[in-house]
Amino acid sequence: MPRVIAEISMSLDGFIAGPNDSLEHPIGEGGDRLHEWVVKQASWREHHGLEGGETGAASEAADEVWKNTGATILGKRMFDLAEGWGDEPPFRRPVFVLTHEKREPLVKKGGTTFTFVNDGVERALEQARAAAGDNDVAVAGGANTIQQFIKAGLLDELQIHLVPILLGDGKRLFSQSTTREIELQKVVDSPDVTHLRYRFAK
Amino acid sequence: MPRVIAEISMSLDGFIAGPNDSLEHPIGEGGDRLHEWVVKQASWREHHGLEGGETGAASEAADEVWKNTGATILGKRMFDLAEGWGDEPPFRRPVFVLTHEKREPLVKKGGTTFTFVNDGVERALEQARAAAGDNDVAVAGGANTIQQFIKAGLLDELQIHLVPILLGDGKRLFSQSTTREIELQKVVDSPDVTHLRYRFAK
Repeated sequence: MPRVIAEISMSLDGFIAGPNDSLEHPIGEGGDRLHEWVVKQASWREHHGLEGGETGAASEAADEVWKNTGATILGKRMFDLAEGWGDEPPFRRPVFVLTHEKREPLVKKGGTTFTFVNDGVERALEQARAAAGDNDVAVAGGANTIQQFIKAGLLDELQIHLVPILLGDGKRLFSQSTTREIELQKVVDSPDVTHLRYRFAK
Repeated sequence: MPRVIAEISMSLDGFIAGPNDSLEHPIGEGGDRLHEWVVKQASWREHHGLEGGETGAASEAADEVWKNTGATILGKRMFDLAEGWGDEPPFRRPVFVLTHEKREPLVKKGGTTFTFVNDGVERALEQARAAAGDNDVAVAGGANTIQQFIKAGLLDELQIHLVPILLGDGKRLFSQSTTREIELQKVVDSPDVTHLRYRFAK
C-alpha cells in the first residue's frame, strides 16, 4: 500500500523557516541554514541536475522519500516558490497544489505537471494517489499544509531532518494544537543532521 | 573542566509539559507521557530507591548526566515540586534553587541540601560549581531556567530526550527567541526515545 509521507527539515527549536520570510526570501532570516545539509548531498544534487556532492547516510536519508514518490502535494505558497524554479523543475512527476485559485494545469519540461486543487486536502490526496499508482505520495510542505494533513489523519509517516541550530524565531512546524499518536520508526544519525522517521497510528 | 549540562524530555512538537499545568498536576495534561520512558529505566529507579527496571541504551542515557553531576540547579517551580518529594529526595547532592524568596538552606536526608539563591543564574552557577568540584553541574529545569542559562551563554551541553508524542499544547522548551550556535555531539537511539546531545559553541 503506497504511503503518504511528509518530509521537512526542522531546527532543534522547532522552526522550518526563519523570521521575516517573504516570497523574495522564502525561508526567512537564517532559514537557509536548515537546508545547508541537503544541498551538499549527491542525491539531492542529482535530482536538481547538479554534479558531485557527498555520499553516505545523509545522502541516502535525503533520497529515501524522494525515490519512492510518485506524486507530490504542495501548499500554494510552496508552489509560488516552485514556480520560480524555471522551465524544468526538479519534481519530474505530477504535483498537486492546494489553492483557492482556479487555474489550468501547468505542464513543465521534464515530467513535472502542476494541477491546482480547490477543494481541500482529501481531494488533493485522492488525485495524488491516483497519479502515484504504486508509489508513495509526498506532502512537501509548507508547515501549514503538513499540519492540515496531520489533523485530517491523512499522513502515514513523517520524516524530520532535525538540524542542530536554534533559529530562535520564525515559522514552527508544530504551531497548531495537533495531537495524534505517533511511533518512532527509524533514526539515522548523519554527521550534520538527525534523520527521524515517525509513523502515525491508524 | 566540569561541564554545565541541562537535561530534559521533550515531545516531538517541542513541549516539556502538557497544557493546564498546576502545582497539583505539574506536567500538565498528557505531560506524564514525557516521562513514561524514564520511570521504567533501572538507572532512574535505582536513584529513586526503586528496584528493577529496564537496562540498556535508554537506562544508560537516563544515567549519563546524573552520574557525573556534583550539584544541581532548579528553578523555583521545580523546587516546589521537589519539596513535595518527601524527606529524602533523590538528588543526594547540593541543589541550588533560583528564587526571589529569602530562605535558610534546607537540609534533607540522604545528602540533599537546598540552597536558595536570590541573585540570578550567574551567582547560582558560581555556587553550584564550587559545590560540584570536579563534577558537572546539572540544570534540571524547568524550561524557563534552561532558557535563561542558554541566553546567558552559561550552558555547555544540552541533552534532550526526544519523545515520539505530539502533545499539541503546553509549555515549550524553546518559547523564547534564543539563538546560539550548537553542534550535534551524540545520538542514542533507544526503542522508545531518541537521546540527543548538543554542545554549545564557546
